[in-house]
Formats: sequence, C-alpha cells, structure tokens
Amino acid sequence: MTPLFTRARRRLSRMPPPLVLATLYISLIFIGALAFLLPFSTPRPISFTDALFTSASAVTVTGLAVIDTQHDMTLAGQMILTVLIQLGGLGLMTFAVLILSALGLPIGITQRVYLREDLNQTSLRQLGELVRVILKAVLLCEGVGALLLALVFVPEYGFWPGVWHAIFHSVSAFNNAGFSTFSEGLTGWATDPVVNLVIPALFIIGGIGYVVISDILRHRRRWRAYSLHTKLTLTGTAILIPWATLSFAVLEWNNPDTLALQDAAWERMLISWFQGVTTRTAGFNTVDVGGLHDSTALMFISLMLIGGGSTSTAGGIKVSTFVVMLLATIAFFRRQTQLSAFGRSIGLVQVLKVMALTAISLILVFVGVFLLTATHDGHFLDISFEVASAFGTVGLSRGYTAELTDFGRMVIIAIMFLGRVGPLTLGFFLATQMTPRVKYPEGQVHLG
Amino acid sequence: MTPLFTRARRRLSRMPPPLVLATLYISLIFIGALAFLLPFSTPRPISFTDALFTSASAVTVTGLAVIDTQHDMTLAGQMILTVLIQLGGLGLMTFAVLILSALGLPIGITQRVYLREDLNQTSLRQLGELVRVILKAVLLCEGVGALLLALVFVPEYGFWPGVWHAIFHSVSAFNNAGFSTFSEGLTGWATDPVVNLVIPALFIIGGIGYVVISDILRHRRRWRAYSLHTKLTLTGTAILIPWATLSFAVLEWNNPDTLALQDAAWERMLISWFQGVTTRTAGFNTVDVGGLHDSTALMFISLMLIGGGSTSTAGGIKVSTFVVMLLATIAFFRRQTQLSAFGRSIGLVQVLKVMALTAISLILVFVGVFLLTATHDGHFLDISFEVASAFGTVGLSRGYTAELTDFGRMVIIAIMFLGRVGPLTLGFFLATQMTPRVKYPEGQVHLG
Ligand SMILES: [K+]
Ligand SMILES: [K+]
Repeated sequence: MTPLFTRARRRLSRMPPPLVLATLYISLIFIGALAFLLPFSTPRPISFTDALFTSASAVTVTGLAVIDTQHDMTLAGQMILTVLIQLGGLGLMTFAVLILSALGLPIGITQRVYLREDLNQTSLRQLGELVRVILKAVLLCEGVGALLLALVFVPEYGFWPGVWHAIFHSVSAFNNAGFSTFSEGLTGWATDPVVNLVIPALFIIGGIGYVVISDILRHRRRWRAYSLHTKLTLTGTAILIPWATLSFAVLEWNNPDTLALQDAAWERMLISWFQGVTTRTAGFNTVDVGGLHDSTALMFISLMLIGGGSTSTAGGIKVSTFVVMLLATIAFFRRQTQLSAFGRSIGLVQVLKVMALTAISLILVFVGVFLLTATHDGHFLDISFEVASAFGTVGLSRGYTAELTDFGRMVIIAIMFLGRVGPLTLGFFLATQMTPRVKYPEGQVHLG
Repeated sequence: MTPLFTRARRRLSRMPPPLVLATLYISLIFIGALAFLLPFSTPRPISFTDALFTSASAVTVTGLAVIDTQHDMTLAGQMILTVLIQLGGLGLMTFAVLILSALGLPIGITQRVYLREDLNQTSLRQLGELVRVILKAVLLCEGVGALLLALVFVPEYGFWPGVWHAIFHSVSAFNNAGFSTFSEGLTGWATDPVVNLVIPALFIIGGIGYVVISDILRHRRRWRAYSLHTKLTLTGTAILIPWATLSFAVLEWNNPDTLALQDAAWERMLISWFQGVTTRTAGFNTVDVGGLHDSTALMFISLMLIGGGSTSTAGGIKVSTFVVMLLATIAFFRRQTQLSAFGRSIGLVQVLKVMALTAISLILVFVGVFLLTATHDGHFLDISFEVASAFGTVGLSRGYTAELTDFGRMVIIAIMFLGRVGPLTLGFFLATQMTPRVKYPEGQVHLG
C-alpha cells in the first residue's frame, strides 16, 4: 500500500462512522449525477437538477422520479441507475450495523464489547466478514428474484429485454428502491400472481433488517431464541401488514380509479395486499397513487413515516421504534414503572432514544412541508404525501414531484438524504459528547 | 345533611377524579344543550346538534361555532353561553390540579404527600381553600378586564350593550374560550391598543396555569425560587410568543387578505402580536383565518397542538410537555444519560409520560383527521386545521365547522371533549393498575 493510501485510510478510520457514511453517500450522489449527464445515459440531454435528483433518489433508494426511467433513459442510463441503487442499498445495510452499534453504545462500554454481545462481531476483521456475508446473501436473493421475474417478463418482451426488466426489478425490489423500467410502474401486472409474490418477498427480506435475518437464519423457527429486537420487529410487521392490507381494501373497494378497476374480489384483495406491503418503504405501486381517496392517502402517510426494519434498506422511524413507542404509551397508562416485552425489559434510555428519534423526524417532516407550502402552490395533502414519501425513502407520489421547482427539488433531496442516512446520524453530527458532572436533584414537571 | 346526599357524596369521593371530571363535563354539556334549546335562548329554533355542539364548544372552552353568537342568540342565550364557559374553565382549573397530582403520583406514595410537597396542600379541606382562592383570582381578573374593555365598547355601543360586550369578552378571554359577541370576531378592533393588550393579558394569565401563577405570587420576581415547572413553562412561553409573532409577520406581511389590509408597519406588527399569542389556545382572531397562507396555517397547526400551560384553561399537549420533549431530544443527541434543566434533573419516568402523552395526542388527531377525510369532502389542510383546533381547544377555523355533517360534528365534539379533559385522563380510564412482579433482564432494541 502506498503511504498516501495508508494515510487516507487512517484518517478515514478515525472519522465517526456516520460522517464516513454521509461523505460516501454525498460523493456517490454527485458521481451518479455526473454519470447521468453523460451523453449515452439519456436519449435527450437532461438538466443538472434532473440528474442530481435522480441520482439522489437512486442512492437513497427512494424512487421519486423527475425523469421517466422507461423513455428518458437509455439502457446505459438504466444500468447506472441499477448500480447506484445497489451501492446505496448495500452501503446502508453494512454501515447501518456500524452506526447503530456506535449510537446504541451505552457510555463507557466499548464498541467491541457491544458488537460481540449483540452482533457476534469481535473486530473490524469480523466486520469485513459480515460485509461479505451480506453481499453473498444479497446476490443470492437478487439472482433468484431475477430468475422468477424473468418467467413473467421474457414471454412478454423477448429474451434480452425481458431479462433486463427482471434484473432491474429484482435489484430495485430487494433494495426497496421502488424504481421501475415501466412508466406506469407495475400497474400492468396488478393482478399477476408471480409479480405479486416475488417483488413483495424481495422487498420484505431487504426491508426487515440484518439483525432479524441473521436471527432467523441462526435460530430457524425457535421463536424463544430470537432477540428482543427480532421479536418486536416481527410482531410489528405481522400487525402492520394485515392492518394496511385490510384498511386499503375497505377504503378503496369501490373507488373507480383504483380497486374498482377490477371486478373480481380476489383481484381487489391481491392489489390491496401489494399496497399493504409496499407502502411502508418499498414504493412500488400497482394502482394510481394520485387516484387514492384522501383518507387512504393519509393512512399511507402514517405507514411511510413508520417505515421498515432497522439495519435494513428501509427508511422511516422504523418498526421497532414505533412498537416501543406504543409499548411505552401503554406502560405509562398502566402505571408501570418498568417497560417490558417478551420477558425482557426495555430501558428508559431506549425510550429517550425513541422520543428523540420521533421528535427529530416530526420536526424534519414539518420543516419540509412548511418549506414546500411556503414556496409552492399545490394541495397540502399532496405536499405532505411527497415529504413523507421522501423521509421514508418510499418513492410513492401523487404527482407532486413533477411540479417541484429547483428549490423544492433541493428540499426533497435533503429530506431523502436525511431520511436515508438517518435522523440519528444527523444527531450524531450535532452531538457534543459532554455529560454533566453534577448530579442534580430531581424536579417535578406538570405535563398534559 | 340528608343520608341520600351523604351517600352520594361518599360514592363521588370514591370515584377517581378524572371520572368525576368527565361525568360533570358531560352532564354540563347536556344541560347546556337543553338550555340552548329553550325558546328564549335563540330568536329562531335551532337543531339539537347545533345546541349540543355549541354547548360542548363552550364547556370545553374551545370556541368553534356552528351558530352565530351575535345574530342567532338572544341576550339570554349569550348569558347561558357565558355561564357555561365560566363553569367549564373554572372546573378545569380546579380539577386539573387534582388530576395532575393523581396522575403524577409515583406508585406507593399517597396523594396527600404529593400534594403537600408540590402544591402546599395537605388535605381535601385545603383543596377547598384552593378552589376559593382560584375563584377569587378569576373574578378579580375578569372584573378588571371587563372594566378596561368597557372603555372601548361603551362609547361604541352605548352603556348596557357595551358593558355586556365587555363582560362577555372578559370571561371568554380569561377562560381562553375564544367566543365573541361579534360575528366577525375581533377583526373590527384589529389595531385597537386596549383590545390588543387587555384580551391577550387575560388569556395569557388564564392560560399559563395555576402552578405558575402561584409561584409568581409567592416568590415575586425571584427567578431562582420558582419551581422547575414554572421555569420551563415561562421559558417555553417566552420563546414561543416572539417566534409565533415574528413568523406570522414574515409569512403574512404582504398577504392582501390579512396583514396587507393595513398600511402602517406598527399596525401589521400589532396584528402579528395578537395572532402570535392567541393561536396556541385562546382562539380569538383579528384577521380572517381562512385567508392565511397554507404555510401560516401549518405553523398555526403546530402552535395549536402545543397549547398553553398545564393546570390552566389551555388545551394541547402543553408548553412544559413540549419543552421536555425538546430537552430530551437534545440530551439524547448530546449523549447525556441524565436529563436536566435549571439545575434540576428530569426523571426518565417524566420522559415516558411526555412520550405517552405525545403519542396518544398524535393518534387522537390522526384518527380525527382520518374520520373526517373518510366521510367529508374538503381540503385536507382545512380538515387538519379544524381537528388541531378542536384538540387544542383553540376554536380558530378556516370555515370548515360550517361544512360539518352530523357525524363530523360528533367527531369534533369528541375531540374537543378529549382535548379538554385531557389525553392523560383518557389514559386514566384505560388504566388497569398493574405492575409486573418479575424484574426482567434488559433487552436491546435497534431504533431508527
Ligand atoms: K423506496
Ligand atoms: K379557545
């Protein structure tokens, strides 16, 4: 290794992990933007903000689009998009583990101990091993997904185009990116059984988080052996999916723009299932999002803010955060002084975290909506939907993306970025690591 | 005392205070509704839901109105309205002290000890004393307020009508009810210096809370002697008022429907000041709320959700709750294991409370907006504004109150009621007072 490289590596290793992640993401976004500006990426020249927005949306695996992936991109452009999605998704999955361990560290306990205890990693070398395992698993899932999707797309589009559609959608689904090579998204396959099983399977695996996956792989179906985090995430997911599916079915059953386009009840249920699983973070759609009832759109906003699993490609405040918030609320009203679930207590410091994360997320979304309403015309619901979609890196849109000015695009790019590298990471930068030396007597505050 | 009365009193004293409060409020709302249905209350007969909505709005000191107080009510009707506002406001101020002490009780410590420590009350007899003190203070403030307002209204409307307008507005302002005997609210006095000083003074005193007032009366200007609660509430208020005033001025300065109606800068600042102080809970308006920019309306929603001071006539999650939420967020990002302010620590159980209260409030507002969007047409922003206004018992409206169906009115009545007797009280009912007997080992959850 050259001394220059060694020095750079040493400097990098001294930077806090979130700063490394943020730097890499920003670099990747700009490199991607430059790649999209190359003449072979698009059939017609696109503007710099078009390129920057598309690259940011890909790297943050959001899926909001200002240019049409099908018609305004060449095959080369679509390949660049795939690479950006893959790097963005992978980068997060591996870095998320590092960041979360750093942030989850109780003060005074070294990262090494934490990693050993919780992730079975004892050193940076084992972390390298972890990255290799993740990489292998990702490629395996995406390969199987592409093969199955090819069964649908090849008969329709011929061999090579069909294979490319399959690979693109497999990568996009596994990384929860929500980009599609079809202008209308997956609305053409709204009732196709393969698409409705393979794509959700990919984004559920990709969106549930490394910790959960490794728990399941290690302990198989022995529920009792799972960690508390896995139990909370699985329980939360198992409640949220049927809830979202049924709510969607009830609210949209007779909407002529969405479910009522299909006659059969099973077709309407299949579409409801897809929307029920995709909304929290994947961002694919098999119905016209702009045609949803206002009440459904509001339900979608709440799901997008909740998001997927920690240490996954998902955005939002995360399922585990949401579940702990609900548990803490219930515990308080039951006058329990201790918070517990599945035979494990949840420390009050964890509750402090949940509140910090929820508060900073709400403030971020609020500021985003505020900046857009102050500078843009447009329906308040559409603006709120767009901002929630960017924050949860979901990528669903009621058509507002197209109406954004350059300033509005910068706002959405910023929210996608912050939604991706995490509100916690944002806090990491603000952190001045001081602890009070004095132990104060406790005061009484009246709340509510 | 008759045995019947003694038995009733004994039964009442065994009920938990929030249940007593809720029962009294519901009874008062129905009695008020019946009174409004009497022929001498209104010049034309009104429907039962009109009467119920008006009574609920008065008793919960919200101020949302389906009938015009100026034209659709007789003097007798306005007097009934005044009595309902006064009973609603007073009832809450006194009961709030009881409820908060009951809920603030750490398990195992008796209410008596808590009351002695924190409110200098040692028995129910002293609580009776407290009610008398509050009553005296209320009548004093309202009397002085009415006298000062009479200086404005008597020259304009003649002696008796002027005196009545003054009394009504004084009671309405002190109790943060926001009702006005003028159809256009206070827009006619938008730049009147007396109205702009007396009315805000009344609702600030009424809305800052008993604990703060008694601290100030006892310790005068000795800041260091104040309790933590007083310091947090005063600091929060001192930041929120200039913030709201300046934001309003900046956002609305050139809006031809609001501030730009006035030419002079001082007049625009005076109107901004009034809107800056009224929005969190009082609900009076000197501009047309329907004419506000969307961004201003959004800022108003955030202020209405924050609300006023604990143990006051204000609604919302309360200033102290909001401040503790911000402090907890900052503390977390500074990696402090202890939360403190003004040389006092804030226990993590308090943080748990803040989270429970915020979560239940957000869920309530979300469900309200959802029910209205699912059953009514209308702009999402207007609906959100209406629900936030009902929850914060503010009473500002962008005109949506008039469009409510009977079902929608019931939703708003329920939200006003819950916003008033407090999300904490709601939780009090749900509470089954169990604590886990086992001390569980602590689990690790990944958040964000
Ligand atoms: K996405
Ligand atoms: K009010």
